[in-house]
This record gives sequence, C-alpha cells and structure tokens, in this order.
Amino acid sequence: MTKGKKWVLEKHFQGMPKRSDMKIVEFDLPPIKDGSVLLEAVYLSVDPYMRVFSARLSEGVTMIGEQIARVIESKNAEFPVGTNVLIEAGWVSHSVSDGKNLTKIPPYPEGVPLSLALGTLGMPGMTANYGLVDVCSPKAGEVVVVSGAAGAVGNVVGQIAKIKGCKVIGFAGSDEKVAWLKQLGFDEAFNYKKIKDLDATLKSVAPNGIDIYYDNVGGQFSSTVLDNMARLGRIACCGSISSYNDTKPLLLPAVHGTLIFKEITMRGFIIFSYRDRYPEWVQRNIQWIKEGKLKYKEHVTKGYDKMFDAFVELFSGTNTGKAVVEV
Amino acid sequence: MTKGKKWVLEKHFQGMPKRSDMKIVEFDLPPIKDGSVLLEAVYLSVDPYMRVFSARLSEGVTMIGEQIARVIESKNAEFPVGTNVLIEAGWVSHSVSDGKNLTKIPPYPEGVPLSLALGTLGMPGMTANYGLVDVCSPKAGEVVVVSGAAGAVGNVVGQIAKIKGCKVIGFAGSDEKVAWLKQLGFDEAFNYKKIKDLDATLKSVAPNGIDIYYDNVGGQFSSTVLDNMARLGRIACCGSISSYNDTKPLLLPAVHGTLIFKEITMRGFIIFSYRDRYPEWVQRNIQWIKEGKLKYKEHVTKGYDKMFDAFVELFSGTNTGKAVVEV
Repeated sequence: MTKGKKWVLEKHFQGMPKRSDMKIVEFDLPPIKDGSVLLEAVYLSVDPYMRVFSARLSEGVTMIGEQIARVIESKNAEFPVGTNVLIEAGWVSHSVSDGKNLTKIPPYPEGVPLSLALGTLGMPGMTANYGLVDVCSPKAGEVVVVSGAAGAVGNVVGQIAKIKGCKVIGFAGSDEKVAWLKQLGFDEAFNYKKIKDLDATLKSVAPNGIDIYYDNVGGQFSSTVLDNMARLGRIACCGSISSYNDTKPLLLPAVHGTLIFKEITMRGFIIFSYRDRYPEWVQRNIQWIKEGKLKYKEHVTKGYDKMFDAFVELFSGTNTGKAVVEV
Repeated sequence: MTKGKKWVLEKHFQGMPKRSDMKIVEFDLPPIKDGSVLLEAVYLSVDPYMRVFSARLSEGVTMIGEQIARVIESKNAEFPVGTNVLIEAGWVSHSVSDGKNLTKIPPYPEGVPLSLALGTLGMPGMTANYGLVDVCSPKAGEVVVVSGAAGAVGNVVGQIAKIKGCKVIGFAGSDEKVAWLKQLGFDEAFNYKKIKDLDATLKSVAPNGIDIYYDNVGGQFSSTVLDNMARLGRIACCGSISSYNDTKPLLLPAVHGTLIFKEITMRGFIIFSYRDRYPEWVQRNIQWIKEGKLKYKEHVTKGYDKMFDAFVELFSGTNTGKAVVEV
C-alpha cells in the first residue's frame, strides 16, 4: 500500500498564516481500480489566492491547490506510467484519479522546464492573458501600470503589454526585482518600498495619465494609482495581496467620484471561471517563449515539507517570478 | 436691443452652494446676423452634475447647463420663429445661435409636456438607458437595486429594469417618493432615511445577492450595497450625489477584494460621451411612454430668478422626478 502525505488546515488563518495553523498528516492510498491512476506530485504550486479561498474550507480538510504530478501506476490507457499531468489535488504528495480531473501537459519547446505548467504556462500565465488582453483591451501607445510586477502574474502582464506596444511601468518590492523587470523590457520599474511620493512618481512617468492598471496588490497603493488614471481608463482587479492578511477592513478614499468623472471601468475576475480558454492562451504563451518575447523566472523551494514556508514567503515578497515547490 | 439675464458663478462652491456664490447679471444681446436665431429660454434644467463640473469653470463665467428654448427671431430657414430646441447655453434667459449647437425636439405623443426634453426624453432618460442597458446588460429575473430611485435618472432606470423583466428594488429619501416608486411598479421601495439596518434590508429582499446596482448616490450606502452583490454583478457608477458637497475625501472600506472574489464590474460613465446615440434612446422612451410602460413626474420651479433655489434643492432631495425651472 502506498503512503501519502497531506497538508491539513487545522485552524483558519487569522492575519499572517502561522505554522501551527497547518499540519502534515500521513495517509494510506487505496489500491487503484480499473480506469484509475496513481499520481505522485512533482511540483506543487503556492499562490496568494489560497490565502483567501482557505477561509471557505472547513477546518481539518486538505489545503487546496494545483500540482504537476506524474503517473506512477496506471490502469487507464490514456494516462500511462510516466505521463505528466496537472491536477487540483490540493497540497498532497500522492493522489488517485479516474482521469477526469487531469490535464495533460502539452509538449514544451526545448529547454523549457516542466514546472512552467504552474507559472507562465499555467494558471498565472492564463490570468495575465485574460486580465490584460480581455479585461483591459490594451492598444499600442497606451500607458500600463502593473503592481506586483515581479510576481508570477505581473511579469507576464508587463511582457504581454510590451508585445502589444504599450508603455509599461512596473512596481515591485526589491532592487533585484526591479533589475529583472528592466531586463524583461519594462520601460520603467520601481522598488515601491523606496518611493517617497508615489503620486509624484506616477505623474512624472505618466504625465497624461494611466490608461490601464493591472492591480495585483490593492490597498493604498492602488488608491494612488486610481487618482492618476486617464479618462476611459481600465483597471483589472486581479489580486489584493497587500490586504489578504488584514484582520480588519482597510479604509480608503471612496472610488465613486473618480470612476464617474474619469469614466473608468474596474473589473474583478477569477481566472478559474475561464478554464475553457486555457489551451488558447497556453499555445500563445508557448509561441511567445519560442520567439524570445516572453521570458520567465521561477522561485523553487525544495521539499514537500517546506510548502508552508514557500506559501508564507508570498506575503513577504520573497519570490521573484513564480513560486513552486519541488518534491 | 434685447436684454438678457445670466447666472454667473462668482465664486467656486465650497461645500453646499451658497446664494452668494452666484449672481444674476443683465446683458445686451447682439443683433442677429444672417443664418442666426435669437432664442428665449422656456425651461431650464438643474442637474447634480453641475455641482461637480462647476469646479472646472473659471470664476466669473456663466453657469453651465441645458435648456429648452424657443426661437423668437430668425434669420435661419431651418429654425423659424416658434421652433423649440435644446441648447447647452448655460443658465441664460436669452441666447443667439447659428443653429449648429441646436437640437430640434421631435414630436411628442399627445399630452406629453415639452419639458420632458430635459427629463425622461432628455439627458437623464438617456443616462438611464445607457447606464442600465449598455453598462449592466440586465437579464430577465435578475435583481436590480437603484439608489436615488425617485430622481430624474433613477425612476427611468427602475422602469426600464421592469420592462426587461428584472426584480427592482428602489431607495429614495421620503415616504412620498417611495409611494410613487410603488405606483411605477418597483417590486420593493424603501425610504433610506428610515432604514435602521441597510445590510439586513438588502439581505431580506435580495437573499441571493444583487445582480445589478445602478448607483446614483455613492458613499456608505453604496459600500453596503457592494457587500451584497451577487457573483458576476455589475455596478453602473452614474452619480455620487451624497458626496458632491463634501469638503474632504470620504473614507470607505476598500473595494478591491470584493470586486475580485465576487468577479464584479464597476463602471463609471458620463452620458455626454454618447450623444450620437440619443436619437435611438429618445425614440425608445417615446415608444414606452405611448405603451404606458414608462411614466414620468416633474418637479417644476417657476421663475428664472429661482434657478439657484431649484439647484440646491437637488441636494436636499426635495424633487421627485426631474427638476426643471419654468421661465
């Protein structure tokens, strides 16, 4: 019998997640039936959304999440031993599937790592495509601001905005991140922790206003960006990581007047509502990678037992690019 | 020589407009040239947007606004004496035009007053059409909340939402207004001044959440409505009358998290950006009036010299339906 491990949410997080809120539990996997496969996690994803969605889980259940898993035993001809798949199995080391909830990972160009199926070629890359292209309709020459720009989603957003001919201004939380954004071709990149006056900075780099704001952070930062939007501006509300660990509601200046008199659209979205479009975006991103227009970086934490550490690092801004855990 | 009167903005409003901020000035109109007409105001509009847009005016200029005027002298065959037109001439009793900035008022059904060209068949009626139908795409069975529901825009919004088969919940500021909303066919109508717990009220009338919020008021009220939106809800940010006279920014709970996790769209708009579509909407509203599906009410103040009084009454909520001044 195969033994597996799972991360259980012992207690709902209050503020910043604590190690004692979670527990690693060993369990036995059932023998597989005809049509089923036994999977072993290869890479597990840690993402900011998990912090928010965890509030909907019952205490005592396995933490939610996606992983790249490999078939290690198969009674399903469609998924022979060795097949790499995506599965939303949660934070587990092993799982059994009848194949219905598995997505095969398409062939990648030479040298592109498998783990990218959790990043630029996975959910965050899909989020960037939908949120920038579908929600904001960028046009050449427009000014795009991206917050959380060195994160898994933000870096892809900025690069697609450059492909679309926009002027791209990125904000991230360290000088190293800023240096990477400049390598990626961002027109301007700032370490927001070192900015004394965000309003003045925005006015200097976007004197005619910001056409598109791709918001990964929320909070006061986004309030100041809103003040600097151009007429008919569009805001993709993708993440609000600055407030996920808040224990009381943050008060900010009311948005209504600005939205009206600048004729602005703010749209929140969750990428899981658009799964049927993933294949289209995966192929588009693969093509851009081949053409050298879309680069990537990963922040890899080794060891299944380190998942919690990799997760909380998201909120201290440790990762540049996509954070994944390698088993 | 014809003598005219104009209302001049002597001093930018600070907080609630004061009578001393404005002044009535007499002036001489020039004799009309070939191709021009002399116009006399018949009905003048007072609208909340004027409070906001006045901040962009220089002190000492004529207050902005639209009016229904009659041609009293003509050297333009297209606009003979007696023609009724719409003109954005500001708060003036008389004006001269070469015809280019005039809109002829189309024939109305029997019994429909001319003044409706400033209300249900004018800018506010257009605002209701665009903001509800184009911005929010109402579907039969959806739940629509309208604030400022007995105002010039709100009452039309609620009636169109009923025509579209929605459940319509209106909020207004007096029992008389509420009674009128019920006459108009609103499914639920409340005097917001008498509600002890808006959140509980919304949960009782929209237990599955609000699909569409047509926001005329902004402020804390709109913040509570946002908390009660359904997934994929749409918010038309049309007005923020509760804060137009505020002297410092109002702080409200941040909207970002709610927009994201409920996948909500908030869109601000100004109807003047869509003037080319007015004729389509005017005809649609006329048709609905003929069919008895769209009713109207006006709050008429008599006397050009009373314009300021009619204007400030907008902010105390005195008017039910469209506020106009009859010369």
